[in-house]
Amino acid sequence: MLSGDAVMNWVESFLCEDVGQGDITTLALVGSETGTARIKTNEACVLAGLDEAIEIFRHLGIQAVPLAEDGDTVAAEASVLSIEGPLRAILTGERLALNMLMRMSGIATITQGIVHACRQRNPASLVAATRKTTPGFRKFEKKAVALGGGDPHRYGLDDAILIKDNHIAVVGSITESVKRAKKVSFTKKVEIEVEDLGGAEEAAKAGADIILLDNMSPEEARRCTEAVRRVNDRIIVEASGGITPENAPDYAEVVDVVSLGWITHSARAVHFSLNVLEVRY
Amino acid sequence: MLSGDAVMNWVESFLCEDVGQGDITTLALVGSETGTARIKTNEACVLAGLDEAIEIFRHLGIQAVPLAEDGDTVAAEASVLSIEGPLRAILTGERLALNMLMRMSGIATITQGIVHACRQRNPASLVAATRKTTPGFRKFEKKAVALGGGDPHRYGLDDAILIKDNHIAVVGSITESVKRAKKVSFTKKVEIEVEDLGGAEEAAKAGADIILLDNMSPEEARRCTEAVRRVNDRIIVEASGGITPENAPDYAEVVDVVSLGWITHSARAVHFSLNVLEVRY
Amino acid sequence: MLSGDAVMNWVESFLCEDVGQGDITTLALVGSETGTARIKTNEACVLAGLDEAIEIFRHLGIQAVPLAEDGDTVAAEASVLSIEGPLRAILTGERLALNMLMRMSGIATITQGIVHACRQRNPASLVAATRKTTPGFRKFEKKAVALGGGDPHRYGLDDAILIKDNHIAVVGSITESVKRAKKVSFTKKVEIEVEDLGGAEEAAKAGADIILLDNMSPEEARRCTEAVRRVNDRIIVEASGGITPENAPDYAEVVDVVSLGWITHSARAVHFSLNVLEVRY
Amino acid sequence: MLSGDAVMNWVESFLCEDVGQGDITTLALVGSETGTARIKTNEACVLAGLDEAIEIFRHLGIQAVPLAEDGDTVAAEASVLSIEGPLRAILTGERLALNMLMRMSGIATITQGIVHACRQRNPASLVAATRKTTPGFRKFEKKAVALGGGDPHRYGLDDAILIKDNHIAVVGSITESVKRAKKVSFTKKVEIEVEDLGGAEEAAKAGADIILLDNMSPEEARRCTEAVRRVNDRIIVEASGGITPENAPDYAEVVDVVSLGWITHSARAVHFSLNVLEVRY
Amino acid sequence: MLSGDAVMNWVESFLCEDVGQGDITTLALVGSETGTARIKTNEACVLAGLDEAIEIFRHLGIQAVPLAEDGDTVAAEASVLSIEGPLRAILTGERLALNMLMRMSGIATITQGIVHACRQRNPASLVAATRKTTPGFRKFEKKAVALGGGDPHRYGLDDAILIKDNHIAVVGSITESVKRAKKVSFTKKVEIEVEDLGGAEEAAKAGADIILLDNMSPEEARRCTEAVRRVNDRIIVEASGGITPENAPDYAEVVDVVSLGWITHSARAVHFSLNVLEVRY
Amino acid sequence: MLSGDAVMNWVESFLCEDVGQGDITTLALVGSETGTARIKTNEACVLAGLDEAIEIFRHLGIQAVPLAEDGDTVAAEASVLSIEGPLRAILTGERLALNMLMRMSGIATITQGIVHACRQRNPASLVAATRKTTPGFRKFEKKAVALGGGDPHRYGLDDAILIKDNHIAVVGSITESVKRAKKVSFTKKVEIEVEDLGGAEEAAKAGADIILLDNMSPEEARRCTEAVRRVNDRIIVEASGGITPENAPDYAEVVDVVSLGWITHSARAVHFSLNVLEVRY
Repeated sequence: MLSGDAVMNWVESFLCEDVGQGDITTLALVGSETGTARIKTNEACVLAGLDEAIEIFRHLGIQAVPLAEDGDTVAAEASVLSIEGPLRAILTGERLALNMLMRMSGIATITQGIVHACRQRNPASLVAATRKTTPGFRKFEKKAVALGGGDPHRYGLDDAILIKDNHIAVVGSITESVKRAKKVSFTKKVEIEVEDLGGAEEAAKAGADIILLDNMSPEEARRCTEAVRRVNDRIIVEASGGITPENAPDYAEVVDVVSLGWITHSARAVHFSLNVLEVRY
Repeated sequence: MLSGDAVMNWVESFLCEDVGQGDITTLALVGSETGTARIKTNEACVLAGLDEAIEIFRHLGIQAVPLAEDGDTVAAEASVLSIEGPLRAILTGERLALNMLMRMSGIATITQGIVHACRQRNPASLVAATRKTTPGFRKFEKKAVALGGGDPHRYGLDDAILIKDNHIAVVGSITESVKRAKKVSFTKKVEIEVEDLGGAEEAAKAGADIILLDNMSPEEARRCTEAVRRVNDRIIVEASGGITPENAPDYAEVVDVVSLGWITHSARAVHFSLNVLEVRY
Repeated sequence: MLSGDAVMNWVESFLCEDVGQGDITTLALVGSETGTARIKTNEACVLAGLDEAIEIFRHLGIQAVPLAEDGDTVAAEASVLSIEGPLRAILTGERLALNMLMRMSGIATITQGIVHACRQRNPASLVAATRKTTPGFRKFEKKAVALGGGDPHRYGLDDAILIKDNHIAVVGSITESVKRAKKVSFTKKVEIEVEDLGGAEEAAKAGADIILLDNMSPEEARRCTEAVRRVNDRIIVEASGGITPENAPDYAEVVDVVSLGWITHSARAVHFSLNVLEVRY
Repeated sequence: MLSGDAVMNWVESFLCEDVGQGDITTLALVGSETGTARIKTNEACVLAGLDEAIEIFRHLGIQAVPLAEDGDTVAAEASVLSIEGPLRAILTGERLALNMLMRMSGIATITQGIVHACRQRNPASLVAATRKTTPGFRKFEKKAVALGGGDPHRYGLDDAILIKDNHIAVVGSITESVKRAKKVSFTKKVEIEVEDLGGAEEAAKAGADIILLDNMSPEEARRCTEAVRRVNDRIIVEASGGITPENAPDYAEVVDVVSLGWITHSARAVHFSLNVLEVRY
Repeated sequence: MLSGDAVMNWVESFLCEDVGQGDITTLALVGSETGTARIKTNEACVLAGLDEAIEIFRHLGIQAVPLAEDGDTVAAEASVLSIEGPLRAILTGERLALNMLMRMSGIATITQGIVHACRQRNPASLVAATRKTTPGFRKFEKKAVALGGGDPHRYGLDDAILIKDNHIAVVGSITESVKRAKKVSFTKKVEIEVEDLGGAEEAAKAGADIILLDNMSPEEARRCTEAVRRVNDRIIVEASGGITPENAPDYAEVVDVVSLGWITHSARAVHFSLNVLEVRY
Repeated sequence: MLSGDAVMNWVESFLCEDVGQGDITTLALVGSETGTARIKTNEACVLAGLDEAIEIFRHLGIQAVPLAEDGDTVAAEASVLSIEGPLRAILTGERLALNMLMRMSGIATITQGIVHACRQRNPASLVAATRKTTPGFRKFEKKAVALGGGDPHRYGLDDAILIKDNHIAVVGSITESVKRAKKVSFTKKVEIEVEDLGGAEEAAKAGADIILLDNMSPEEARRCTEAVRRVNDRIIVEASGGITPENAPDYAEVVDVVSLGWITHSARAVHFSLNVLEVRY
């Protein structure tokens, strides 16, 4: 374990899910043979999950040498990983490694496409993820977003304050909500979700650091952004809700940040395959 | 915990991922208020994940009453869960409950669509999932497939034998591979993946219980199925590889089972939302 | 971790049970001395647990070299493992390594004896384990059964279907039970337990893949087997209930599989000992 | 969780081993039916594991009412537990509950037999367990020993000092070994294993609290005990090594404590069965 | 589990540390007796840890009724918790409950004292904790700081950016460090540690949100604060390093936030005791 | 993992607490640079936690070379650990390593001071810890006590018997309490807490191995010790309750063991710092 982002024991937990009581096929068919295998893309993509694939094979006692790097744009049929070692372990780790690659690269690829489209309209715009992630897999989905050039946004409920409609419903007002939130810690930004122009102005005056415009049309978003800028031009304005890969650029033109759950919950997977190239008996 | 499918402590693990050191927004804004909330669909779907949502709220000390059942086809804007209890806990559990529902219902909905289309061509056909699932979340994705009328296929490497191309490459032949596999346990079926007509015939003669036709056109699959039937008409024939929601019915016409990773790795999520209806101070 | 059967962190969990807050004797008496030790059998046996002993010492940073292989029939006083490294760690791992060996070899040894006796009567017969295993230790007990030439049967409730008397009592009939079970997944065999000849015939006609004759005399079992064969001669017939090492061969003569809990729950342990041969200060 | 001996989450861990991805048979065959079931003994025994069976069913949401108590001597065919609740959960918990009962009662029963035989020769004698237990299951095996009237001895390497032959081999002498051990903590007794009369005398003079006579004949043990008594009559003398249920009383006559691994590693299981008495639809 | 701050299973983990294989004293001395007990303070303090004590007893099946609230200032000999239930469980949970209270109240009490002293010099000043906490216990130490009126600061390396001397040493300059950090996510504040006036000015110009003055005298801190204010008066200035309860107010006069490890790593514990008031047989 | 005291996975658990979803500062600022760093003391102390610091860096793939040993008395500004490797990992592990060192060395240092003061009055006296430790961190606090020359006393409720006031309140008498406790296991010492002279005498006559004098003045303690000695001069007498670093020697003069929670719950931390000495790009 060499870097600061990999201290938790996810490999073991994910392998256990797949292997269970044992890979009964491989144990019955494969003995002490060693070999060489290769993972290649089946379609062009932004690569993500390669570090994870390497870590999986490392955990199984196998050396895997990267032929590309996470974040690279790679062509179809490109070899991305060379694997060398006992075939039992290679075959046991195969599916998990491919599952990490296919899902993470799917997210990185669609993210990069949206970032690219948004930056053509507004070069300073950010594309951000949400907490609409697969339970237990958020860390990897957020990492894939970052590899595709997106902003990961909050990792969880503890790393930034985001006041949502239901919170305001309980507290009673935007102003009071922001006031309470600002007492949490001077180390945290305060973001608040608003539904309309009045809410946006109230939030700006109350001292929010970030204002999230929820479920607005691009035109409404433009008006809210202008109103917020008049109160305080350091406030960051984010749009979210009902945003798709198609309409994201329309929002990017009028706000600072466009966030969409789509990139983590509905991204299509990218295909990869692992082939054994040589068997040594 | 009332049923046999829920003995593992997934709620705690998934909540920890989202809550981390604490839901700092809710802790700062909400005190001892209680209230009523409702989860509704934002689009029509086959419902899945409701049992999980109930379990999440139960774990947080909240009673949630289902207004529909997993497996039901529900309309857009339908209320599916009524929630009653401390608002701190309701807001802390909100996102995880919605994330379970949106992902599982997305899978159930697309599965049912494909099953329906396939059965129109071949009423006896089965649509099956693969092991191309999100790491750590397979159990829920397979359950969603079943709720949509699909067959979950293997849960992991330990519950059935599936000999793949890489295994055969190590062993040297289909016949020897099947022979070794049949010794594992009389309680397990032996499935083998083949690439062409010769392979399908060899596998059938070797005594496989299930033959998986990998990456064939529907026409090739038809020829292989006929060849297998001539050897032994009790063998189940499955097609996989390159199958999409669009072309699945073409395969369903000629084999017993169509399996596709698409339904677990590329299904679009269904939108749900949670609204607080009443706050009691 | 080099093979597909060893991804779970059992070593750490078992060591913690034994070591607790620390091996206070060894920490007080032994410092940085290194040494050589040997594990030997105290009685002839079929060896099982050696891979596990090696893994335990590996986890503690010690190299252990096998002098025999799991599955071998070894004589009394045979050296089976040579161990080299820091004596603190060798002494801390000693008991766990011996406990794995003594229990697993006990099971392998008795299993092989029964397999041998049964095959003299019916060379095609199988001897199988049950789920009557020590909680938390099933994986190792099933592996020992396989090393002794037995069939591990189900690893758990998720890898094959086995309809038992209590299930039938709830469902109401054998036929309906088998019908429901056949819908679970085309990848799973359906086994059902029956009490008498009528049940065996009904199960055979309902399409069960395996029929388990529960608590019958060898003569009753013979009659049931013949009845089942008349319906469908591909059905596997298994006998279980009240079977001991002594009467197992009587059943092996008349059915395909004899299964008995005895080999996992009542096998006598085999004695092993670890001796330090050399101390280096 | 009501008592001080049950704070660890063993139920969940053991259920997971058995249930895995789900009890596929029960999920397919049983719905929302509730019912009544009963666990009974199939042979006379000293009951152990009943508290654990109750805890297993409680964890699954089922009320189980004891009809006897752990430690009771019960007849064959005695009902020991009445169970009421959803049948899905009853059937899912059945095997684990029975496995706890069969193994723990087997140990308690054989322990009580040996205690009884030893006390006829020496009413003050103790019969003790060793650390030769099934990995991961020690706590329950030691508890069963206590329920049968035995002494659990050490639970692990951290709760008492026991200097064995290999420790002495490293340190160089019995006297120095005891001296080092006495510095560990005034709260711990110091026990040492010796091989002969000279060792026993040296250990007694060095100040050991307990002396374990290893692998001696009863006659040798008698001579050693007398020698130890001459040095200090408060020292407890224990015999171990090669002791079986048969020869234990011969040792009980001449020492204070007889310890044998047999009661935990080679005890035959006691049979129990669970029957559904009533089904409510 | 009723609130958003308590989803992790700390009770079980902490109880296991203390109870290990079982509370052998209580199991031997106490049977089914129930009773009433009370926890009282032995000295005046700011109360913290009471919610945790209640949760510990709840986990053990015991009802505990609070007689005060976390955050209250309580006198010596004040009763703070009334406990009712099985005495086995009360005695098993006693030490852990007291350990939570004594350590958390010690931190809350000293924090409140420092906050009070600092606010007399600068009513707007904040007193903050650091990451110098006891490994595994940070969450509770930070909560105690907050109950004493302090700011918890970062919970971990993932919830805010804090660039320290060693980071700058690697990157090469303050300006470049801040520039890289600002790309992480628009949701995170960027804080940087500086050693002198030049560093403070450079950090302010680079766009840091918070500047931490490390190991300066109050006079140096004043000069740096003034310099930072000239660049941008919205930047928060924090002093840390070498700050003790005694000199904290001197810093509070000249900066916005005073942070000190002292309150978590060197706070003296507050004494509490638990007394059984009534035993029911 | 080389020694018997380190089998549990504390490094991973503690790192996760600090790192959470990732060290976002280090990941953004540091790439593949390697370097050399050094940990030094900021004040004189008895060193403890160095083994743990080495293990933390080892877990992160970094080689750390000790420049002193746990238990050594080291001067201020002494270098104690040299670290070499990827800077990402060094910076991610920095705080945890320092937190272990600062807390453990604080405990070892104060313990040694008290031991020294007590031994000047009574060279045979022991200074012992209690169970008043930080939840989750006891093992390390007890180890630090031992490194400072103290006695760790019980690690938990399972490794020795200690009958406290609340136990006696339930049982009814000291004599009966000791009688029940002596049946637990011949391997465990029986210690009992008494409040006055009568209690001490009763406990001695009942056969306790250790008598703990609770909350007495040194003069009362002296009288009790003399009374106990008259009954049985092998009984160990311990004083506890209200003992501070200042008055500990007064007790050491009159009893065998002085135990105080102070050394684990109120010890001031010792300061250490880590500096990067060289960066390699």
